Amino acid sequence: MKEVRIGLIGTGFMGKAHAQAFQNVALLFPDTARPVLEIVADGSLETADAAARAFGCRGATGDWRALVADPAVDVVAITTPNHLHHEMALAAIAAGKHVYCEKPLALTATQAKEMTEAADAAGIKTLVGFNFLKNPATGLAKQLIESGGLGQIVHFRGTFDQDALADPRAPFSWRFERALAGSGALDDLGAHIINLAQHLVGDIAKVCGQTQTIHHERPVAGSGAGYLTRAAEDAEMRRVENEDQVQFLVRFANGAGGTIEASRIPSGRKIWLTYEVNGTKGAIYFTQERMNEVQLYRSDDPSTERGFGARASESPRGL
Amino acid sequence: MKEVRIGLIGTGFMGKAHAQAFQNVALLFPDTARPVLEIVADGSLETADAAARAFGCRGATGDWRALVADPAVDVVAITTPNHLHHEMALAAIAAGKHVYCEKPLALTATQAKEMTEAADAAGIKTLVGFNFLKNPATGLAKQLIESGGLGQIVHFRGTFDQDALADPRAPFSWRFERALAGSGALDDLGAHIINLAQHLVGDIAKVCGQTQTIHHERPVAGSGAGYLTRAAEDAEMRRVENEDQVQFLVRFANGAGGTIEASRIPSGRKIWLTYEVNGTKGAIYFTQERMNEVQLYRSDDPSTERGFGARASESPRGL
Amino acid sequence: MKEVRIGLIGTGFMGKAHAQAFQNVALLFPDTARPVLEIVADGSLETADAAARAFGCRGATGDWRALVADPAVDVVAITTPNHLHHEMALAAIAAGKHVYCEKPLALTATQAKEMTEAADAAGIKTLVGFNFLKNPATGLAKQLIESGGLGQIVHFRGTFDQDALADPRAPFSWRFERALAGSGALDDLGAHIINLAQHLVGDIAKVCGQTQTIHHERPVAGSGAGYLTRAAEDAEMRRVENEDQVQFLVRFANGAGGTIEASRIPSGRKIWLTYEVNGTKGAIYFTQERMNEVQLYRSDDPSTERGFGARASESPRGL
Amino acid sequence: MKEVRIGLIGTGFMGKAHAQAFQNVALLFPDTARPVLEIVADGSLETADAAARAFGCRGATGDWRALVADPAVDVVAITTPNHLHHEMALAAIAAGKHVYCEKPLALTATQAKEMTEAADAAGIKTLVGFNFLKNPATGLAKQLIESGGLGQIVHFRGTFDQDALADPRAPFSWRFERALAGSGALDDLGAHIINLAQHLVGDIAKVCGQTQTIHHERPVAGSGAGYLTRAAEDAEMRRVENEDQVQFLVRFANGAGGTIEASRIPSGRKIWLTYEVNGTKGAIYFTQERMNEVQLYRSDDPSTERGFGARASESPRGL
Repeated sequence: MKEVRIGLIGTGFMGKAHAQAFQNVALLFPDTARPVLEIVADGSLETADAAARAFGCRGATGDWRALVADPAVDVVAITTPNHLHHEMALAAIAAGKHVYCEKPLALTATQAKEMTEAADAAGIKTLVGFNFLKNPATGLAKQLIESGGLGQIVHFRGTFDQDALADPRAPFSWRFERALAGSGALDDLGAHIINLAQHLVGDIAKVCGQTQTIHHERPVAGSGAGYLTRAAEDAEMRRVENEDQVQFLVRFANGAGGTIEASRIPSGRKIWLTYEVNGTKGAIYFTQERMNEVQLYRSDDPSTERGFGARASESPRGL
Repeated sequence: MKEVRIGLIGTGFMGKAHAQAFQNVALLFPDTARPVLEIVADGSLETADAAARAFGCRGATGDWRALVADPAVDVVAITTPNHLHHEMALAAIAAGKHVYCEKPLALTATQAKEMTEAADAAGIKTLVGFNFLKNPATGLAKQLIESGGLGQIVHFRGTFDQDALADPRAPFSWRFERALAGSGALDDLGAHIINLAQHLVGDIAKVCGQTQTIHHERPVAGSGAGYLTRAAEDAEMRRVENEDQVQFLVRFANGAGGTIEASRIPSGRKIWLTYEVNGTKGAIYFTQERMNEVQLYRSDDPSTERGFGARASESPRGL
Repeated sequence: MKEVRIGLIGTGFMGKAHAQAFQNVALLFPDTARPVLEIVADGSLETADAAARAFGCRGATGDWRALVADPAVDVVAITTPNHLHHEMALAAIAAGKHVYCEKPLALTATQAKEMTEAADAAGIKTLVGFNFLKNPATGLAKQLIESGGLGQIVHFRGTFDQDALADPRAPFSWRFERALAGSGALDDLGAHIINLAQHLVGDIAKVCGQTQTIHHERPVAGSGAGYLTRAAEDAEMRRVENEDQVQFLVRFANGAGGTIEASRIPSGRKIWLTYEVNGTKGAIYFTQERMNEVQLYRSDDPSTERGFGARASESPRGL
Repeated sequence: MKEVRIGLIGTGFMGKAHAQAFQNVALLFPDTARPVLEIVADGSLETADAAARAFGCRGATGDWRALVADPAVDVVAITTPNHLHHEMALAAIAAGKHVYCEKPLALTATQAKEMTEAADAAGIKTLVGFNFLKNPATGLAKQLIESGGLGQIVHFRGTFDQDALADPRAPFSWRFERALAGSGALDDLGAHIINLAQHLVGDIAKVCGQTQTIHHERPVAGSGAGYLTRAAEDAEMRRVENEDQVQFLVRFANGAGGTIEASRIPSGRKIWLTYEVNGTKGAIYFTQERMNEVQLYRSDDPSTERGFGARASESPRGL
């Protein structure tokens, strides 16, 4: 089987997710090319080395430029904080590597456009880490919409609420700095639901939105502090520079209207990535918290049997 | 419009429910005969009088035999404690009145048979208070089963759990006495789900069951104490004579298997009257806690769209 | 018990709902003043007479001004199409009657303000038909918010989607005419969710919205055609003058952000009146389709037990 | 990090599941011993070789006895059809290997007891493939029960319904033969829910059950036909020797009552492994179809806030 050799930059939460996915491909999709994790890069050689051992990967480096230059690498996977994506992706493209970059693609639309144009000019393949797009539930939604099964699409309602930062004592991190993260809930969470909106309903023609920052400062904590850490009561405070929640109206090119919202501080929602798509002949509802279900309504069903139904995938067992 | 004149025996919780239903008929079903509450009876004239005023009813009596004998009464509705049903119904039948009797019909099968035979012999009409049977959701279930839409019915799972007596300090009442109530959870709650099982799947050929009494004694409280009252800590205790919960296996005449359960002490279930009916071509699930929904699965649906769906009634609005 | 004598204008769908509610008060709330339906008015004496018989009401008139002038009437209940509310309410106020008027209160804010000021000046009591406000679930939501149990309220998301007019063959009616109905989904459905938003989160400081009309014309059908009627294929078409769906951003006076949406043409939603209120210490979610449940999340719960929970009212049974 | 060397017998559906789990351990549990898949065995060397490549495993053999004898193997994992478990496990135990065996452990209680005693005598470690036991939701259930948070446990209701064989054209396989599979739905599915019942409520003292076979014969199909295959209409038919569905009453040693059911032919249930545990102070409900949720009711909650709540694990994101 053909192998695709991966160089992975960033070995934190998302780096691990990439590593695990790469190593499971052979078992789940035996007939496709097999990704092989060739080398990992992180801020220090020590961190990279430890990750390489955990990931079952041969190479490690503390210098991402070395990884990009490595002739053994076919694809560069970028899972670093947002502000690094632009520079790393451009370097990888310049080196002739295919690029798999996490979202948000860049801090600004200008940067993203530059990256896209460079990739097109170099003829390399790119992928942005919109993982939710690949859920079979969304595949069914897409297929129903494209086949006309829902009629003319007239409305979209999407949310991505996740309470990871709901606790006001969750410590300050790069995610709250505009120079490193760009916007807040919009970039980190909203990117996914905007992606799904475009995937399902098409181009967005107009938007109009508002943002709110609720927790205006966050405690400064030790370098290892993560989302779920609660900082000490006497920790020094630092000002938050981007939004905790965002809501906006959308008008799609096809005339459909709708709303999109994202929040990093809702109470209780764990992965409340939801969409409801309304068409003149049916509707579909999905939430990632019940990721194996699609609620589908078809106006064409017999009148006594119409209803939002949890459509599940086939029974998962084989012989 | 033709009137049907009702004599109502019992003016407590269930008596009120009957009275309210009678008075709403004209608005909801304008084209049917109109029930008119003619007279109410209760243990004392005072109680009956107060109820008559609340129910907007002309007559009242402290003697149920007078109500049964009243020539103005067409139908006798019996909503008294269980042990009185047999005597009252037989008296009403003897007086040539139609009988609408609450469940359980009697304390024993022998009594119930006697009542049925007397009614048949007298040529009067009878109705047992199996109100849940009339939910349109169950109407849809029945229609799907009868039309063959679910294929051969092979399994039934039914429950009626209601936490009205879950609190061990809920006071002793006639419901805990075998002579007055008959059995416990089985008669009070199980009767409804057995009724639905027979309605949907047909006759039950065999049963095998077990019961448990969990709270073996209950505090004696004042006469007005109801289900949701909590008796004083120093109240005198009295022994409970019937079961708190019951489970049994059923084998239907058509070969289908299943289970039926009832509990008056579950934690948190308010009106957990549920059934799941499995056929070779589909299945249906219902819970009274979401009484406007039926979960329906059809094997005949397109394979990508099969799923348990909440089938709701049409939008309730008229012009 | 004190009686309150009602004069009801309009005997259609909503008039019936009022009549039924009035007649059930005595049974459900025995200790309050008792409403008595004294007289009903409709467009013709014949219609009013038929309704009076169905409603168990003594008087009937084809002239609503006679009803307003009737000295036996304490309260005038107005359930007519929207454009009539203003004139009728002002007349009732002028006659010194208390006024219970259906929503939307008027066609314009100017009209509504005039009505409110007239009532204030006359010292009469008024009530707008925001029935959903009285659901105990919303009572719990309100109490949790007011007690501080959800912390600072930072977000509101509300919808009212109802598919009553989803079928493009649902016939033209006064609801599609701007002069008679005012706006479309916003007035008819949105009024309720705006009401709940204000009730739960407080005054709305700013809005920004968009509307879409999806079915630009509707078939003209016979005068008795209602929401659920489907007009003949060859029926004459008439232009729809107001919106099928609306979405808007809200900014509350307290700084909270959010979205409100309404649609009269969604697929499959029967009474999708929903709200989600997010606070810094908890959140609450409600949908009228499961009207006995409130989903509540409390950050103060033990960490292993936090979760959105369906909080139901106590078991409904009495003795 | 210490390595544990695995020899895996069986490379079908369940063998793949084991292989995938072993390879993900290092990423998810970096601080535990690391399983290394040393060698796989299957019915032919060819099959084993192909699996070894897909699993990223060095060794392969067509002779499971060679695998058992391999000194490089620390643990033998058995994922073959049921009738082989007994012989293979005893051989592995005799060779001093630890044994990880799929459920059902054996065809009879006598066999299972023999295996257990041999393992105890040899001082080796064993594990049966009751994977659902490790769902954190069940961990929470267990903890709540053990801590007394639900009070005295009085009732258990468990099901495992899976529609993998609901289609009567699903082909005959070893699962329908008593000599190879033992019982049907009981062994294949019921084993899991019995396991959970014992884990959560303790030993079962008495049972009383019934079984039904609904599809009495199945079409014989090609050797590669699996659960989801549909056999040709003219395929030869073969008699099914074990039950399609089973229901039984249970009485636990602690006095609690309940029911357990399993079906391999329900309509629409994909992995309807559910349990409801009732205690005198609370209750818990779980279904594997919504595997990230536990519905929990606590009588100790404030009375206005009691309710079955979907308790979810903490937000899954790290830094």
